[in-house]
Amino acid sequence: MSAFEGILPAIITPMNGDGSFNEEAFRRVMEFNIGSGVQGFWIAGGTGESILLSDEENMRIASAAADQSQGRVNNIMHVGAATTDRAARLAEHAAGAGVEAICCVPPFFYGRTDDAIAEHYRIVAAAADLPLFVYNLPQSTGVEITTSLMRKIQERVPQLAGLKHSSQFFPAMRNFSAMGLDCLVGNHQLMLPALTIGATGCVDGPPIVTPEYWVEIWNAYQAGDLERAETAQDRASGVWAALGACGGEFHSVAKAALSERLGIECGAARPPGRPLSIEQREKLRGTMAKLGLL
Amino acid sequence: MSAFEGILPAIITPMNGDGSFNEEAFRRVMEFNIGSGVQGFWIAGGTGESILLSDEENMRIASAAADQSQGRVNNIMHVGAATTDRAARLAEHAAGAGVEAICCVPPFFYGRTDDAIAEHYRIVAAAADLPLFVYNLPQSTGVEITTSLMRKIQERVPQLAGLKHSSQFFPAMRNFSAMGLDCLVGNHQLMLPALTIGATGCVDGPPIVTPEYWVEIWNAYQAGDLERAETAQDRASGVWAALGACGGEFHSVAKAALSERLGIECGAARPPGRPLSIEQREKLRGTMAKLGLL
Amino acid sequence: MSAFEGILPAIITPMNGDGSFNEEAFRRVMEFNIGSGVQGFWIAGGTGESILLSDEENMRIASAAADQSQGRVNNIMHVGAATTDRAARLAEHAAGAGVEAICCVPPFFYGRTDDAIAEHYRIVAAAADLPLFVYNLPQSTGVEITTSLMRKIQERVPQLAGLKHSSQFFPAMRNFSAMGLDCLVGNHQLMLPALTIGATGCVDGPPIVTPEYWVEIWNAYQAGDLERAETAQDRASGVWAALGACGGEFHSVAKAALSERLGIECGAARPPGRPLSIEQREKLRGTMAKLGLL
Amino acid sequence: MSAFEGILPAIITPMNGDGSFNEEAFRRVMEFNIGSGVQGFWIAGGTGESILLSDEENMRIASAAADQSQGRVNNIMHVGAATTDRAARLAEHAAGAGVEAICCVPPFFYGRTDDAIAEHYRIVAAAADLPLFVYNLPQSTGVEITTSLMRKIQERVPQLAGLKHSSQFFPAMRNFSAMGLDCLVGNHQLMLPALTIGATGCVDGPPIVTPEYWVEIWNAYQAGDLERAETAQDRASGVWAALGACGGEFHSVAKAALSERLGIECGAARPPGRPLSIEQREKLRGTMAKLGLL
Repeated sequence: MSAFEGILPAIITPMNGDGSFNEEAFRRVMEFNIGSGVQGFWIAGGTGESILLSDEENMRIASAAADQSQGRVNNIMHVGAATTDRAARLAEHAAGAGVEAICCVPPFFYGRTDDAIAEHYRIVAAAADLPLFVYNLPQSTGVEITTSLMRKIQERVPQLAGLKHSSQFFPAMRNFSAMGLDCLVGNHQLMLPALTIGATGCVDGPPIVTPEYWVEIWNAYQAGDLERAETAQDRASGVWAALGACGGEFHSVAKAALSERLGIECGAARPPGRPLSIEQREKLRGTMAKLGLL
Repeated sequence: MSAFEGILPAIITPMNGDGSFNEEAFRRVMEFNIGSGVQGFWIAGGTGESILLSDEENMRIASAAADQSQGRVNNIMHVGAATTDRAARLAEHAAGAGVEAICCVPPFFYGRTDDAIAEHYRIVAAAADLPLFVYNLPQSTGVEITTSLMRKIQERVPQLAGLKHSSQFFPAMRNFSAMGLDCLVGNHQLMLPALTIGATGCVDGPPIVTPEYWVEIWNAYQAGDLERAETAQDRASGVWAALGACGGEFHSVAKAALSERLGIECGAARPPGRPLSIEQREKLRGTMAKLGLL
Repeated sequence: MSAFEGILPAIITPMNGDGSFNEEAFRRVMEFNIGSGVQGFWIAGGTGESILLSDEENMRIASAAADQSQGRVNNIMHVGAATTDRAARLAEHAAGAGVEAICCVPPFFYGRTDDAIAEHYRIVAAAADLPLFVYNLPQSTGVEITTSLMRKIQERVPQLAGLKHSSQFFPAMRNFSAMGLDCLVGNHQLMLPALTIGATGCVDGPPIVTPEYWVEIWNAYQAGDLERAETAQDRASGVWAALGACGGEFHSVAKAALSERLGIECGAARPPGRPLSIEQREKLRGTMAKLGLL
Repeated sequence: MSAFEGILPAIITPMNGDGSFNEEAFRRVMEFNIGSGVQGFWIAGGTGESILLSDEENMRIASAAADQSQGRVNNIMHVGAATTDRAARLAEHAAGAGVEAICCVPPFFYGRTDDAIAEHYRIVAAAADLPLFVYNLPQSTGVEITTSLMRKIQERVPQLAGLKHSSQFFPAMRNFSAMGLDCLVGNHQLMLPALTIGATGCVDGPPIVTPEYWVEIWNAYQAGDLERAETAQDRASGVWAALGACGGEFHSVAKAALSERLGIECGAARPPGRPLSIEQREKLRGTMAKLGLL
């Protein structure tokens, strides 16, 4: 059995009215998800507004996460940054803070050779004595982590534990699994499909809002109950589709939905992200009420 | 229950030494697959060298398929062509020949508006009183059949039965299924994953060579046996991965492998397709022997 | 000085009301353009509805073009087809018909290796004792003719004369030029820019409608008059932008505009292409009148 | 005449052995280029390792640039950053430092709506009373600045002066020019072609190394000497092609080449960028000697 498996929601980074990190709300969101049965978190990643955070905010988040969970779940802390030095410093801090693993996007903005990417991962991993997950997110980074590139990373990074795979090359999961990696599928709609071809779990943003629906997929799958798992996947996908259809940017929708569910304001997306309009927020609240989420 | 479901291999178009259609080999390949338990065929599509065939060849293939199967399985005949007129004539012939359904790629080479694409399908479908499958094959046609485009087609084509989905937008299958369409996944590696989110079956080229492996996925899935289904999918994917790794173009590999299995020469890909080299053929034969396929 | 240079409009394929080839209109369009000073034609290519034509139509067009021009201009006849055999037969016919050169898209629909593409060109070229132009049209064929691929073609095809470059990799023109190729830029808006980095001429559809504007660019460029050339390019681009803004598909706009200019109906795009609506045709006529084109 | 025109090399950010900003080398590179006749600089942009710099480094660079040029040339300072707040602070600083204009990439990493992008530019521009250039760099940002998006920006940003266009949609330059924008082409190989369709100048990295070659293009173009301008463009493109062929990453090649030319070590690319190998540096030096650049 894999150490990193099940449903690990990508957690939002709640913010105060002045745009600063809202640690209290962050801890509440964690606790709500832990109580719902999740196996861990993907922290300060894409859903967590990653590269919009300062290094200081990133470090504070790592510390808060480790302190809040007290080892109850697997915290995978994102340490990706524009330079290798910054990513390595974040990795070092994360290890000291007590998270269970780190994850890292490949270098972005500039195209890099496979050699440069593998070297980046080697240095970042060396700064922290923790399992490392590669974050395959080509729509944001412009880098597709192919199996060939992954092999180069695997050769140089002894702590390589797995990857979050948010790419459209879905069948690659079978190959990553065959390489001995924990493969966390990065698309909530594909949790069950991915599990059937070797994924060990799912990391994505929508589950942070309605974790109970995704935990049910995992439990049904673990029980080998195919029909129940299919029904669970269909319901979970449907719930998020309904919330997403209310309009607005993903980060702001997820924060607003959690604000409604938990009764603690989680703020909006950091600019250039845009908040929900009043109409969007109203529509979201109405949809959540109809779905029994309030 | 859906009428078009299960494993429907995309059949090759065997050719004689002079490049002409080898009807005897075609019938043998059909019979071998029917004997292995397939639910039908996708005929003269991408695997069948589709647009490399003359209209006369295409018609002869439709007639041979209907005559050979005698209603035992579902034959879905491809009628796509560069012009609407030619596609409509092929559709009319297919209906007369006695196949169970037709399928059609969208207009290719020139970019077309959604309106032009829907109108193309309306005219083609009107020429044949048969269920119609849309063939979503963007890597060849340059057209992504989105759910929005599919709705426009559905409004104009009463016989619309479903689609073969060979696109990388894998999660769209849930949406197509919700539209009441039979969704046949076009990637053999994703048969089981697709079934878990609403697909009714699988159409792809590799199963024509080793149908027994794909029939097993379907049977295990039908029995609700998740573990058996996963094992079957992994084995089936692995068998094709081994054959594909022997080198050479897909059409030539599939034809050579069937030649070896059935003892009747199926020829090579039509030029500009290239035949296997002697070394590639040797390697393929050796791999097949090791896998117990000879 | 290059033999294939200047402005070589891509000619439309006029059609009768029943959809058949309108040879009389075709000859009129040629004559109008020759009278306007063009250096040649790109025939039955993208603008000429290429792959929507039957082989018989294609051959009739080649014969009509050679007969009409009687050697006054350079006719470059397109012979691309889905199979190597068909393309070679069209090439053989074109040579017999008396055109000055042939051109050919790479194999489309199926992805091919560089080796298969070069071999395709070798066989097609061998069927006709004529200069050959490669047709780099990736948006339709899915194949980018890189300089590396072009070198492989150049090694195998002694008659290789040049290419029409309709790709977005605009700077590649300098490289093709350095390889000794006649480089015909395939974007009318970039005629002058291309000439300044090594192109010998321009092939595109819009010039067939208003050849006088493009001939002026060539004449100004030949005279070394930079300011006049820039003004000419700006005007020519502007004229087409105004016509294109009237709505409708390119083929139907070009045919309608020539119908208006020459007083002979050129028909509409062959289905799946769509004709102009009555409103679009009205708007086009009004715009042409304002521009002094009627 | 446009205020921002001619050749404005994208300047490198020289670094010391410990990876810190080498201000002395930066001033030397500026002076060398000013002495060669350039009209300005594009500072801390793509070539300047932009998003790899800390805000403090970025500010120090702005101050050094303004202090060094003393108004002799146009300094366009890049202020793009991951968040709107950081970009606005950098813009405010740049205005205080005394540069002539600012430029800014659109928000990157996360896909944004046109509305969010325009709002980002509005806030950044409002923080500095300076002309603003949009930086169209889709290969790094994932955002194509279309003419439609640019119109939305133009409506909200009164100081909008122009753009650097590093996109493959080369013909868009005519449209941007027609909108009254100073259009700086972002591809050194296309300086002359761009000038002929409305560009006012060129911004790119290679000219920082051999400014004399690019100044010659501008001077020839200004003189209306078409043949001389073509020869100059061909030579300039050829010189960089030769240096680039020596191997290694762009930033490290540019820095090494300037180190060789100016006799002051400019360092290597910041990691994850990789330095040149000893062999690459040797080869570069040899090539430069042959080209008379040492």
